[in-house]
Amino acid sequence: MEKSALQIARAAYQPKLPRGLKGAVKAVEGAATQSVDNQEEIKALFPNTYGMPLVEFVPGEEKSYEPMNVGIILSGGQAPGGHNVITGLFDAVKRLNPANRLYGFILGPGGLVDHNYMELTKEIVDEYRNTGGFDMIGSGRTKLEKVEQFEKGLEIIRELGIKAIVIIGGDDSNTNACVLAEYYAAKNYGVQVIGCPKTIDGDLKNDQIETSFGFDTACKTYSELIGNIERDCNSARKYWHFIKVMGRSASHIALECALQTQPNICLVSEEIEEKAMSLDDIVAYIANAVAVRAADGNNFGTVVIPEGVIEFIPAIKKLIAQLNDVLALPEAKNISRDEQVDFAKSHLTAENLAVFNSLPEGVARQLALDRDPHGNVQVSLIETEKLLSEMVAKKLDAMKAEGKFVGKFAAQHHFFGYEGRCAAPSNFDADYCYALGTSAAQLIAAGKTGYMAIVKNTTAPADEWKAGGVPITMMMNMEKRNGEMKPVIRKALVELDGKPFKTFAAQRDRWARETAYVYPGPIQYWGPTEVCDQPTKTLALEQSK
Amino acid sequence: MEKSALQIARAAYQPKLPRGLKGAVKAVEGAATQSVDNQEEIKALFPNTYGMPLVEFVPGEEKSYEPMNVGIILSGGQAPGGHNVITGLFDAVKRLNPANRLYGFILGPGGLVDHNYMELTKEIVDEYRNTGGFDMIGSGRTKLEKVEQFEKGLEIIRELGIKAIVIIGGDDSNTNACVLAEYYAAKNYGVQVIGCPKTIDGDLKNDQIETSFGFDTACKTYSELIGNIERDCNSARKYWHFIKVMGRSASHIALECALQTQPNICLVSEEIEEKAMSLDDIVAYIANAVAVRAADGNNFGTVVIPEGVIEFIPAIKKLIAQLNDVLALPEAKNISRDEQVDFAKSHLTAENLAVFNSLPEGVARQLALDRDPHGNVQVSLIETEKLLSEMVAKKLDAMKAEGKFVGKFAAQHHFFGYEGRCAAPSNFDADYCYALGTSAAQLIAAGKTGYMAIVKNTTAPADEWKAGGVPITMMMNMEKRNGEMKPVIRKALVELDGKPFKTFAAQRDRWARETAYVYPGPIQYWGPTEVCDQPTKTLALEQSK
Repeated sequence: MEKSALQIARAAYQPKLPRGLKGAVKAVEGAATQSVDNQEEIKALFPNTYGMPLVEFVPGEEKSYEPMNVGIILSGGQAPGGHNVITGLFDAVKRLNPANRLYGFILGPGGLVDHNYMELTKEIVDEYRNTGGFDMIGSGRTKLEKVEQFEKGLEIIRELGIKAIVIIGGDDSNTNACVLAEYYAAKNYGVQVIGCPKTIDGDLKNDQIETSFGFDTACKTYSELIGNIERDCNSARKYWHFIKVMGRSASHIALECALQTQPNICLVSEEIEEKAMSLDDIVAYIANAVAVRAADGNNFGTVVIPEGVIEFIPAIKKLIAQLNDVLALPEAKNISRDEQVDFAKSHLTAENLAVFNSLPEGVARQLALDRDPHGNVQVSLIETEKLLSEMVAKKLDAMKAEGKFVGKFAAQHHFFGYEGRCAAPSNFDADYCYALGTSAAQLIAAGKTGYMAIVKNTTAPADEWKAGGVPITMMMNMEKRNGEMKPVIRKALVELDGKPFKTFAAQRDRWARETAYVYPGPIQYWGPTEVCDQPTKTLALEQSK
Repeated sequence: MEKSALQIARAAYQPKLPRGLKGAVKAVEGAATQSVDNQEEIKALFPNTYGMPLVEFVPGEEKSYEPMNVGIILSGGQAPGGHNVITGLFDAVKRLNPANRLYGFILGPGGLVDHNYMELTKEIVDEYRNTGGFDMIGSGRTKLEKVEQFEKGLEIIRELGIKAIVIIGGDDSNTNACVLAEYYAAKNYGVQVIGCPKTIDGDLKNDQIETSFGFDTACKTYSELIGNIERDCNSARKYWHFIKVMGRSASHIALECALQTQPNICLVSEEIEEKAMSLDDIVAYIANAVAVRAADGNNFGTVVIPEGVIEFIPAIKKLIAQLNDVLALPEAKNISRDEQVDFAKSHLTAENLAVFNSLPEGVARQLALDRDPHGNVQVSLIETEKLLSEMVAKKLDAMKAEGKFVGKFAAQHHFFGYEGRCAAPSNFDADYCYALGTSAAQLIAAGKTGYMAIVKNTTAPADEWKAGGVPITMMMNMEKRNGEMKPVIRKALVELDGKPFKTFAAQRDRWARETAYVYPGPIQYWGPTEVCDQPTKTLALEQSK
């Protein structure tokens, strides 16, 4: 493997560990826990993994451990730091007993079911220390939900003498990890299952999980780019840049990037839903900001847009729901592509038709024509950044005719997602992930199952971080998924009364009018600690008293 | 101005200077020079600034200088390091005599003509040390070419007691700087003009100019992103990423990024032109690479595309030329938008019509419909990355039907330009620009005009760099521009027999088939010197013996 100078130098970084995980470890247990809601239902569904105590690791005394083998799975989308969870787990497992082995299942949960695995030796693991990506063993989106999968997985678990499986994933994957833990516990198979909180989206967090790993690095990478664009914008003084960032089901990324870079405008999907804003409301909001800046002589600006914003607009949501129904009608099947738009229009309610007609032609066509394998409208294909700038341009033309806009409007578009999911982890993510992996090993050694590895107090220096484990059932409630009530880990959306949003909301009017850009620059690994070791603004604000 | 932690910490960086510029300076002059071609014509056009010697600065003895004021202009597109040319110039000018003043002309050459300026005090300059962007004084694209502009500029030059103007720009701006220098010299106005080589495109270089500033930082920023995408690509293993990078008139950026990241494919416009490749040839080349990787089970990859590639395809160039003519016909003016495509088609030669018909519908429509204010087809609006992936998909469908492609093909698209033009300069660009600014000050102090500030031996440690000046006429030849023969600085295209291209060409077949990605990571400012202080691969290869 050819390597860059940074790859070579960065491999030598030794992640910082919390005091409690540095040497021999003792597990301190708290009181019994209960789920955040629907306690009776969750308890009934998870009789063997419900009510377990929180665990914290503190310095303990050296003792010897029986040999044990461990399996690891990467589930879902890439997030910076995944490899460090594995290296942390590997080092800790080997420290517990050098005879222990670590097996990686290839290309995600499917690797467990299909018995596709490799032993992760020191030689392999050393190649991936502090690197981005999930390429050490790959990831995948197979969902572990069925008894046949659990039983099929058990075969290879038995064959390899595996005592515990660690699943690194988002809210769904960790929910499934808990279902698997419960199943193996109920069957008395003696196989433990431990989860780890991963997602760049930042929507897997709660009282126990301060942040999901990867959010820090991904947001810092996007913020580097947004800052660079802002600086260009402020130098060239002739474009409005519409910048979409990943985050379909929550706007944490957009909000964090806004806190880091202070763009003129940042949309927050949760607020748009809460205020029941229409697409036209959003367009008018942006157009007015453009006009105000133009009046000051500033025909440039930046707009940050969360990927999922379209789906949070109540009127669009309704339209999409009806389109999905209409296009699933039997008579829709046999008409030509050309006729589909008219067919759809003729079946929409007056309200939905009005919304449909308000969309630019290209977007409307796309909504009516492009569907996924399940027959659903493909909202994710819509280039929201272009849709919005096109509608803003139109609105500004109208405002100009009324004398309400005196200036020029030209737009550039960007979408950042893949640029950050596999960035080499920041010191924060490198440390945090390594500690999560170490915690996971200690949870296994302590005989735990149905737990997620956690690290708290993460805005303090790493030495003072507190590592431990949380019963996954503690974070569950019942939610409707595909028409059925399911036990799931509650997804964390942006809280409109939380400090990150309120901090943003208190400043955004000034940011909109002034040019208050901040340029975070690229992630640094070796500089001053205030540059290299800071958590996200979101985390700092959430944890501040 | 609110600042990020990096902005604050980076402001304290003291750029490294060549030994010859560290203290008191002596200007050593070489032999008389001549232009690279058309010596008689260039000499006739530049009687006062032709044939001057090369200048090198070496350590000298302290002496006192009369007070002098200096003006500075940023011309054209942003490039990382522009502010450091100004800080270098400022520091050197003040060192020469603390009474000296530096004036910045606002928003480019137009600021000189319109008398739009500000004095750059220590307080202002200190805010911009080692920062990206041109926002200190802004830039602009006004061309200084006319006598009225020169005379109008002279008024403010006289008013401010300015002895010399420094123009930071690309090849055109430096050509114009020389025309201005010649004019002021011919008129005996006693006003000097000094140029500085700026452009992220990397096409302003020759025997005297090793590299233009900004190329280093921009390429490293794009390479960071391409590397991150490659890592994602290699982790998810399901997408081909088509990544377009800036560079319309030369492919240096694409080539440098390829050398840094080793993608599966990189197109080089100059090679496509040289080999007279058709669009279909390019599509077939990519599709074959996709098929070969698919046969190995690798349904993923990365393709790097220079922005200007379309315009280098001889057949497309011909088509565009005819479209420009056809759409300028008087009878084209009064027909509706809907009829224009047919109108265009009915007037094309059979050969051009065939090329037009081979284009995806959207692109063909765009070519026929969207024109710039001069009535020309807007090639730059074409999303080449999407055009190519769409055509590759079609080709692969055909290959699949013939059994020549067994696999899946799904594409993602990216365009990187604005992300890198205003990045905070790398140590290389920060040092290089600061030295250029310092050189410019010394050229002024030595009474030179019609020179460009240069720094050579830039692959050695900064201490060993050699600073000086080159007569701009030395880099000129006569070229046809808009139908007229003009004296211009020769633009540097990618040389197919140069080391950078040959190094790439020797490895690209392996890169295409294997997954040989290299991940450069973000620019580092404080790490080990092999990470922080390296020049581009292009520069290192060009300067290697």
